[in-house]
Amino acid sequence: MTTAQLTSEIFKKKSFLCVGLDIDLNKIPESFLEKEDPIFEFNKAIIDATHDLAVAYKPNIAFYEAYGIKGWQALQKTIDYLNENHPEVFTIADAKRGDIGNTASMYARAFFEDMEFDSVTVAPYMGKDSVEPFLAFETKHTILLALTSNQGAFDYQTKVFEGKELYKHVLETSKTYANSENLMYVVGATKAEYFTEIRKIVPDSFLLVPGVGAQGGNLQDVCANGLSKNVGLLINSTRGIIYASKGEDFAVKAREEAQKLQTEMATILEANF
Amino acid sequence: MTTAQLTSEIFKKKSFLCVGLDIDLNKIPESFLEKEDPIFEFNKAIIDATHDLAVAYKPNIAFYEAYGIKGWQALQKTIDYLNENHPEVFTIADAKRGDIGNTASMYARAFFEDMEFDSVTVAPYMGKDSVEPFLAFETKHTILLALTSNQGAFDYQTKVFEGKELYKHVLETSKTYANSENLMYVVGATKAEYFTEIRKIVPDSFLLVPGVGAQGGNLQDVCANGLSKNVGLLINSTRGIIYASKGEDFAVKAREEAQKLQTEMATILEANF
Repeated sequence: MTTAQLTSEIFKKKSFLCVGLDIDLNKIPESFLEKEDPIFEFNKAIIDATHDLAVAYKPNIAFYEAYGIKGWQALQKTIDYLNENHPEVFTIADAKRGDIGNTASMYARAFFEDMEFDSVTVAPYMGKDSVEPFLAFETKHTILLALTSNQGAFDYQTKVFEGKELYKHVLETSKTYANSENLMYVVGATKAEYFTEIRKIVPDSFLLVPGVGAQGGNLQDVCANGLSKNVGLLINSTRGIIYASKGEDFAVKAREEAQKLQTEMATILEANF
Repeated sequence: MTTAQLTSEIFKKKSFLCVGLDIDLNKIPESFLEKEDPIFEFNKAIIDATHDLAVAYKPNIAFYEAYGIKGWQALQKTIDYLNENHPEVFTIADAKRGDIGNTASMYARAFFEDMEFDSVTVAPYMGKDSVEPFLAFETKHTILLALTSNQGAFDYQTKVFEGKELYKHVLETSKTYANSENLMYVVGATKAEYFTEIRKIVPDSFLLVPGVGAQGGNLQDVCANGLSKNVGLLINSTRGIIYASKGEDFAVKAREEAQKLQTEMATILEANF
């Protein structure tokens, strides 16, 4: 999927919502635990209830790895279900991988070729030769961690060297990489005041923005400084949607929460484009 | 396994060799491709041929992820084989994971509880709250990326802020984390001249040192500056050992290469302890 197609979907659905699919078996309705594949069945129910309101889905790979082989099978079924039934949605493997050249290529192959995700999140600590193997997949997108939503982001990411913060170096340096037009960046919603500075460096890039809802980030604040000329934002919500209820009405409640965000997004799009 | 037990094994085997198990099906003898589980069978053959010469084994998780469900099954069988038959060896899941609190806990659970690895490699970019969930497993070890063996290490890790390089900040800050006594660090053999500085910050910690062999690092140079009072080094070799031959003599050749390194290590231990 190209970014132009993604932008087109955003205007069609009047939404730039990404739904996180981080499945914890302790948090889903008990009736699912009796099913053969509780994780996939829960994901399917969430996708069925929200796919007209969301433009992207983002399983965090940790939650699948934690369930071993069964987790990976559920992940494969989930991405297959999305690709077969909703090819218009943008899929993100939130894996935060980062390793040297030949190893990074193996990770890229796993997520882009075997699983057919549209994009994968990648950590920048190991530098250029850990990122470019992902960018070598020209029809895919590499989403680089820049400024994350957690408190630990202040440990290193905001430290200043050679006149600017580490996360700005990450943004600027990455623009020189081969196929850099396929880069997107993770910027936490909890850091809304940083978006103006970030847009000076990457005015047009898509930003994947976690941290709205449970982590305390605010949609209006992010949009005030983060919108680009092609929208350029994917706002992720996970717990606020998929765990809106632990009862049998979980899908109805998930849709309600997704609808609230989509309505707010439609108003923002109307006002800005 | 405690670090005291690891040191004891090092002196017993006169070796601080770690064998990397990064299996690429294009590089193993063709006869293995006909077996039901080529990856596990190859690993088993390498382990059988080298376990008296090595104190640690380190599968890089990317190489298993790239083969999907079958890869994960092979990884599980490999760690089970090591834990059942060679409980004295230290096992490292080279995963380079890094995510926020609740997600990091899921990764920690995957590698420490489900798979029963002794340790996992973790990336520091997201700061304290991305590392401490791993350290919460008190009987396990968390191996933090400090100064990696690749060229990209110079992109950010060696940049100076507040008077010192990023990798030194990572080392120093991590010493303040809860259960920091269970930390080890990745330092590339290709950066031998940095070990003196690193030992000033973490004099006693174990360092996992990739990059000897194919990547150009030198064992003597690393040991000259990197040994601690309890040895404190795990020198990894992957391609130089497991792909020493692609013929049916691969296990014999792997043992020969491991033996060369072990002999060199025995001499170093003899001279220093």
